Amino acid sequence: IGIKGRFGQWLQTFLSRQGFTVIGSDIGTHITNIDVVRRADVVIFAVRLSRMASVIGSLVPYSRKSQLWLDIGSLKKEILQKMLRSRAEVAGMHPLFAPPHEMSWKSETLVLSTTRLKRWSKWFGKFIATTGATVVRATPDMHDSMMVFTQNLPQATVLALAMTFADLVKSPPSNLLKFSTTASRKVLALIASMLANTPEVYGDIQVGNREGVAALDALIDSLKLIRKLASEGSSDEIALILGSLRSLYGEEFIAAGKNGFVR
Amino acid sequence: IGIKGRFGQWLQTFLSRQGFTVIGSDIGTHITNIDVVRRADVVIFAVRLSRMASVIGSLVPYSRKSQLWLDIGSLKKEILQKMLRSRAEVAGMHPLFAPPHEMSWKSETLVLSTTRLKRWSKWFGKFIATTGATVVRATPDMHDSMMVFTQNLPQATVLALAMTFADLVKSPPSNLLKFSTTASRKVLALIASMLANTPEVYGDIQVGNREGVAALDALIDSLKLIRKLASEGSSDEIALILGSLRSLYGEEFIAAGKNGFVR
Repeated sequence: IGIKGRFGQWLQTFLSRQGFTVIGSDIGTHITNIDVVRRADVVIFAVRLSRMASVIGSLVPYSRKSQLWLDIGSLKKEILQKMLRSRAEVAGMHPLFAPPHEMSWKSETLVLSTTRLKRWSKWFGKFIATTGATVVRATPDMHDSMMVFTQNLPQATVLALAMTFADLVKSPPSNLLKFSTTASRKVLALIASMLANTPEVYGDIQVGNREGVAALDALIDSLKLIRKLASEGSSDEIALILGSLRSLYGEEFIAAGKNGFVR
Repeated sequence: IGIKGRFGQWLQTFLSRQGFTVIGSDIGTHITNIDVVRRADVVIFAVRLSRMASVIGSLVPYSRKSQLWLDIGSLKKEILQKMLRSRAEVAGMHPLFAPPHEMSWKSETLVLSTTRLKRWSKWFGKFIATTGATVVRATPDMHDSMMVFTQNLPQATVLALAMTFADLVKSPPSNLLKFSTTASRKVLALIASMLANTPEVYGDIQVGNREGVAALDALIDSLKLIRKLASEGSSDEIALILGSLRSLYGEEFIAAGKNGFVR
């Protein structure tokens, strides 16, 4: 369900190549969501995050005990609550990456919240193993809390930088590149990746995670502190903060960061 | 001058290997700054950014017309004003990178503000060519304005993220890595690089660039707008902003960002 989307397309190709018959629905398709739930053994929800819970909710009445329901949503709590109202077996997945070109999730991380798996357990395990993904398990609550730090805050800062550059830089972005430092070139690459992606993804994540707004307030407070220290000429205070952060993050983290935390 | 620093060390090795006699001063050295200016043909200022202008100012009386004065400071306006008060020939350099392990600046960018070069012009040109750096020329004013976007804003955001993670994340930073997306792993690597570097560098840049604080205000405003839209549930508004940014940055920028803007 959501077969026209980027992950829908990827999963269609991947599962077809595994020999499975894939049927799919999306906005404008002949086959409806209800058709899919009525006919499929395994239902995968791959619609836009903001629509996920309501689409699942509307299909709960058509669920069967013999089915497996899966989703690929970027948040897990509300989505799994909805899926668990069905009669189906249920597992939540969150691929922490954009759909790759190749038909493999090797060297990518997939978060699993497997909450109700019985008969489908073996099939699901094999499916995941075939993707090649590195699996990290988490409860839906823990997953959503962690995503504030690995989705909401980094995405909001990259977006805020892109907006500020657009407001303040008088020359074209290519000039920023010309004068970029090693680090700022990486920041510009993050902006480029974000702009290349489906824009709805980012809005839905900022809006959808209930812990996001409070975290944004904390981020704004951190920036305000830097702004205050900068305006007061307190360079040494900023250096002290960096020193204490170094102790907190630790030398192992810093050393591993040198190669971009490649596993 | 500043021979014990990271760039001082690099330049000492590099110039010695080119066959030049290198003498240097730093805090605690037997040779003083005045000794260096009295004896050297080429003086390179490589002290901490916040000390640069005053160190140069204190040495102006000892300058000679036959000398070349160079600096490697991250800001150019105030430093070049001070150097130009000397009798020496003057050129400003800003390496937009940390001193590399290898004895080459190949594939790195060096900003040049060459404002008073005559007899030393040829020697300086050869020196720069030998480093292998990609040269970008800029007036001191233009340089400092661009650095707001490639130093102050990206560095402040990476620092603010590091501070916010430290405040809010209950688990060790390794847990952030475990749940990191492709993009957030790159953000964490930027945090690690910043923490690995000399902390004073970052404080001095935030404090030293006079256009920095106003730019931080604009960045805070951008974040506040994202926070407002998130709290109002305006996901589509966020997507609209991303759409208009995509037009503004352009498809060429976005495509080039895919390989990290590697030249």
